[in-house]
Amino acid sequence: MVPSRPASDIPAAVPARRPGGRSARIRTQVLDAVRTELVEHGYDALTVDTVADRAGVHRTTVYRRWQDIGGLLADVLDVGTDDGWQPADTGTLFGDLAALNHEIQTALTEQRSVTAALIAASFRSGQAADALRNFWENRYAQCEIAVHRAAARGELPPHTDARQLLVTATAPLYHHLVLLRATPDPHLPDRAARAAVLAASAGAFGRETDCQTHAQVFTA
Amino acid sequence: MVPSRPASDIPAAVPARRPGGRSARIRTQVLDAVRTELVEHGYDALTVDTVADRAGVHRTTVYRRWQDIGGLLADVLDVGTDDGWQPADTGTLFGDLAALNHEIQTALTEQRSVTAALIAASFRSGQAADALRNFWENRYAQCEIAVHRAAARGELPPHTDARQLLVTATAPLYHHLVLLRATPDPHLPDRAARAAVLAASAGAFGRETDCQTHAQVFTA
Repeated sequence: MVPSRPASDIPAAVPARRPGGRSARIRTQVLDAVRTELVEHGYDALTVDTVADRAGVHRTTVYRRWQDIGGLLADVLDVGTDDGWQPADTGTLFGDLAALNHEIQTALTEQRSVTAALIAASFRSGQAADALRNFWENRYAQCEIAVHRAAARGELPPHTDARQLLVTATAPLYHHLVLLRATPDPHLPDRAARAAVLAASAGAFGRETDCQTHAQVFTA
Repeated sequence: MVPSRPASDIPAAVPARRPGGRSARIRTQVLDAVRTELVEHGYDALTVDTVADRAGVHRTTVYRRWQDIGGLLADVLDVGTDDGWQPADTGTLFGDLAALNHEIQTALTEQRSVTAALIAASFRSGQAADALRNFWENRYAQCEIAVHRAAARGELPPHTDARQLLVTATAPLYHHLVLLRATPDPHLPDRAARAAVLAASAGAFGRETDCQTHAQVFTA
C-alpha cells in the first residue's frame, strides 16, 4: 500500500530496474524531483517549473511529456503500480495482514511521507485522485493472493470475499492516521489484522451474505 | 459522525435551538454562509470577504470574531460538536452500529456534502484539521454509550474497548468513500457493522490483549 519509497531512497533503488535510455533516465529524474518537492514544500508549491529546475531538465521537456502537475502526480503513482510489489508470505493470514498493516503504518508516519503527501494532493487534483484510486485498486488486487493462500490452508470459510476482508483489515490504519490524525498506535497494525481475521473466520465476508440480503429484499 | 446538516437544511433547522440575540443570529448567518460557499465553490474560493458578503454581515465583524478561514471552519465544527447528537438506540449493537454507518454513508455521499468538503479542507488548513479531529473525538465518545449498552445486555466479552470497536465499525465507510473514492456500496454500512460485532464477540477488542502483548514483549 506504499506508493513509493521515500524520496531519499529512490536514486539508489530505481535506476537498476528501469529500461535504459535517456527517456527512462529523464523520467526517473523528474519523478524523483516531484516526490522531493512534494514532501519538502507540499502541493501548493509544486509547479512544473520548480520540478524541471530540481530535476535539471528543460521545462519544455516536462510540459511536453507530462503536461501539468496532475500528469506528474499520476505518473508517480503509475510507477508505484508497476513496481512488482507483493504482499508478505508469512504462513498465516494474520501474519500476512499484520505485515501489510505495518508497511502502511510506516509509509504514513515516516517523516517525509510521499504517501501522506500524495493523499493530501488527491484532494486538490482530480488526476492525482484518479491515479491514487487506481494505485490502491491495484494494491488490493495484488494482496488477494494472501487471502487465497489462507483459504487454501483452510483458514477461512468458503466464499470469503478477499477484497472486503482486505479493506476491513487495512481501513483502521488509514482512518486513524490520515483522517483522525491520531498519534500512531504501535499495536494498531496487529490489532486491525487480528480483528479482520476473527471477523472473516466468523463468516463476516461470505459472498452469500449479499445474496441472502437480496433474497430477503425480494421476498419481503 | 455528521458535522452538520447540508447547507440547504440549515436556515429552517438551526435558529430555534440557538440562544437568542444578535450575536447568535450573526453566528448562524456566517456559519451557514461558510457551509454554502464550501459545498458550492470549495476551499480554494473560500475567503472571509465572500463569506461576509453571502451572510450579509460587515467584513470587519467576521474578521474580529473569527480572524480567518481557519477560524470559521473550526467554528462550523464546534457547532457540530455541541449539537446534542446521540447514537441510535435500536436494542442491538449491530442495529446501533449499522444506523451509525448509514448516517456516515449518507453524510459523505449526499450531493452537496458539508462533511466531504470539511475533510478536503482539513488537508489545507491546520485549524480545520484540529477542529475535525476534535469533532470526531467527540462523536466517538458520544457513541461509546452504544457499546456500554451492548455490554450491559451481555452482547460483548468483558473489557471490550469501546473506541477500538467503534473505529473498526466505521473506518471502512470512510476508507471506501473518502480515500478509495469508490462507488457507494449500499451493503457496506451493514456489512462493516456486522464485521465489527463478529470481531468484538470473538474478543478482538479486549483490553487485555494489549496487556498480554506487553507481557510477551517484556518476558521475551
